[in-house]
Amino acid sequence: MKKSAAMTQKRVVIIGGGFAGLNAAKSLASLPIEITLIDRNNYHLFQPLLYQVATAGLSSVDIARPIRHILKKHRNIEVLMADVERIDPAGKKIHMKEDDLDFDYLILAPGSHYNYFKHPEWAKDAPSLKTIPDALKIRRKVLTAFERAEMEENPDLRQACLNFVVVGGGPTGVELAGSIAELAHHTLSEDFRRINPASARILLVEAGPRILGPFDEFLADKARVRLQSMGVEVLEKKMVEDVSSRGVRIDGEFIPSDTVLWCAGVLASPLLTSLGVELDRGGRVPVNPDLSVKDHRDIFVLGDAAQFLQDGQALPGLAPVAIQQGRHLGKIIASRLKGEAEAPPFRYFDKGSMATVGKGFAVAKVRKWETAGFRGWLLWVFVHIMYLVGFQNRAMVLFQWAWQYFSFDRGARVITQDLPPDS
Amino acid sequence: MKKSAAMTQKRVVIIGGGFAGLNAAKSLASLPIEITLIDRNNYHLFQPLLYQVATAGLSSVDIARPIRHILKKHRNIEVLMADVERIDPAGKKIHMKEDDLDFDYLILAPGSHYNYFKHPEWAKDAPSLKTIPDALKIRRKVLTAFERAEMEENPDLRQACLNFVVVGGGPTGVELAGSIAELAHHTLSEDFRRINPASARILLVEAGPRILGPFDEFLADKARVRLQSMGVEVLEKKMVEDVSSRGVRIDGEFIPSDTVLWCAGVLASPLLTSLGVELDRGGRVPVNPDLSVKDHRDIFVLGDAAQFLQDGQALPGLAPVAIQQGRHLGKIIASRLKGEAEAPPFRYFDKGSMATVGKGFAVAKVRKWETAGFRGWLLWVFVHIMYLVGFQNRAMVLFQWAWQYFSFDRGARVITQDLPPDS
Repeated sequence: MKKSAAMTQKRVVIIGGGFAGLNAAKSLASLPIEITLIDRNNYHLFQPLLYQVATAGLSSVDIARPIRHILKKHRNIEVLMADVERIDPAGKKIHMKEDDLDFDYLILAPGSHYNYFKHPEWAKDAPSLKTIPDALKIRRKVLTAFERAEMEENPDLRQACLNFVVVGGGPTGVELAGSIAELAHHTLSEDFRRINPASARILLVEAGPRILGPFDEFLADKARVRLQSMGVEVLEKKMVEDVSSRGVRIDGEFIPSDTVLWCAGVLASPLLTSLGVELDRGGRVPVNPDLSVKDHRDIFVLGDAAQFLQDGQALPGLAPVAIQQGRHLGKIIASRLKGEAEAPPFRYFDKGSMATVGKGFAVAKVRKWETAGFRGWLLWVFVHIMYLVGFQNRAMVLFQWAWQYFSFDRGARVITQDLPPDS
Repeated sequence: MKKSAAMTQKRVVIIGGGFAGLNAAKSLASLPIEITLIDRNNYHLFQPLLYQVATAGLSSVDIARPIRHILKKHRNIEVLMADVERIDPAGKKIHMKEDDLDFDYLILAPGSHYNYFKHPEWAKDAPSLKTIPDALKIRRKVLTAFERAEMEENPDLRQACLNFVVVGGGPTGVELAGSIAELAHHTLSEDFRRINPASARILLVEAGPRILGPFDEFLADKARVRLQSMGVEVLEKKMVEDVSSRGVRIDGEFIPSDTVLWCAGVLASPLLTSLGVELDRGGRVPVNPDLSVKDHRDIFVLGDAAQFLQDGQALPGLAPVAIQQGRHLGKIIASRLKGEAEAPPFRYFDKGSMATVGKGFAVAKVRKWETAGFRGWLLWVFVHIMYLVGFQNRAMVLFQWAWQYFSFDRGARVITQDLPPDS
């Protein structure tokens, strides 16, 4: 592999092809530098729609695009599919499994995963939703639960198959619970002979004072009422105390359930520990106003992996934050390369936030304007289609949404078996 | 689970939700009987397009539909997702893992899998293409080979990553080899920086005298010329003598390759051995003209699992044979239930056969009319869309084909990681 000794141009290494890394790569592409983007997957994933893959509304490839395909026009960007194991900030080098790579600038955007609050053993029974394999696993778990219920003669065990517990009342938890409720009450309603899928119980459990914590109370109230009307039981201020293969214990009460899904708490990538700087409680790297790491002017951290303080508050782990940071970093590095005055510090511009609650209903806040209902949902559809990468993906997703809107049918209701471990 | 003691109506059990089983279920649905269809998957798979899933042209769910959804209007059909372990023909009972089920009529349509000619150990290094997990495994293998080549510095090892060997020159092997050639020469052409994907070698190996054995020589010649013009090396009368993780030995010559794909030889489901009748070399059950099994008038075998002799020749394992057998069986069972004169014996009506060789080119024979080229391909597209189940799937597949036709882009180029074995 090329070493920097042979380089005539500065080399920028980007770790992670999510919203932050991909936008950083694009914003740097016009500069006279060599860029290497490394991701452990060959695709960029549109995470905001991952819950629809998990609930059989979309196919996994609808929300994924090969990174090297997105960047193919930029001849100065190479894309490697590899695992980065360690960073050597002093030696300006990163170590992959098979090779290592020198850098002049390093951009870290490795993302985050869910955090089981000191109970990593819960992960086995309560999968979380961050990757495509996660989504396919949850889809299989949810659909198989109905199949098993159909085969089960013992009424208690049958109900356990039909109890779905979603832990975490943030946007992902709300969207997932709403989508499972639709599946049970509409999509599957005629498919079974022995069970009534509508007898499914869907619980959404939030430890905080209310669901959709970062949203205004008005919108959270609207979402709660909507969820309840769809058949979701919303439990707030309730702690999950135990998770096992048989169910969950919530505030002392055991709820038998074959399907516990985890959407609570986030921890940044463990790769960041090799930077040797102090991390915050979420494993994130505190960054300077120019997104660089303390004492490492040429190393930047973006997206979910960064703790960026704005007006005294850490920015949330949202796609728009990652996108804006990636884009802005291009300006900062360009000004340094050209020897011009440093670009202004990063500042997040909050365009708004939104969450869907089943089809045809979303809560949204745009600046000071708040809406809950069909209008919010149209806005949500528009924004998500706009940000989805690739014309083909947009057309496919729009078609499937239109189809589902009128038919309640979901095409991706296919239970894929595990691949054998040696595959 | 219901036992036949409680039944007032005859119970028909169908094993397998492929073309044969699904069409049998539909053709029986209007009779006053109880029907149970059992499949180990929850979906019906449109196998003729599986090679496009393997080569990233289609998404797996585009060619799969939940069986219970297809049959939901027929209230006398129940669908179980279960593994049948054994048949008890004398006791008229089938045994599943968790339960067993009595039957009055049994319809066996469990399909087939590929056969490694007494070398089951080759399966690990040369996956075959029968199921969705197979297709996803092949997709991952093919796409990862290019990614590894991009990372590899040793030129010999790099070429091994770029050597693709398809064993078996039947329609599936031809379609797969053509599709990989297009991937290398067109779809991926701009995506890499260190390798040229067009330096891939694609070998199609056939042990028989020529590829497309069941087709006329004229069409096989046309297909061979087309494959060669696409960059596929067609090796005929060549035996594969060994397969390992490093490559294949063909007629004494070792060809290093990371990607060996197996499309040769077929063996019927091992479930059939529990019938206690003599099977043919392909593990198939010889059936009577009414599709029933010798000495078991109420047990029928259809599709790939049956050896049906017509004019002295066994019918091939093709979708149209399975579909026609499934449909015809409905008539036979109806005549018996009504006590009418037995329906005529089954006779296969051969409408023709076809195989694509890359996009825009297919060889086809319809009655006495033969064609090779774009016209054949249009016919191929029409027939495959027509037989695909479900409007949504049809629209999605058509859209993707149109997209690929004009852009060479394939949307499903996403390498999904293995799921952990405990998932």
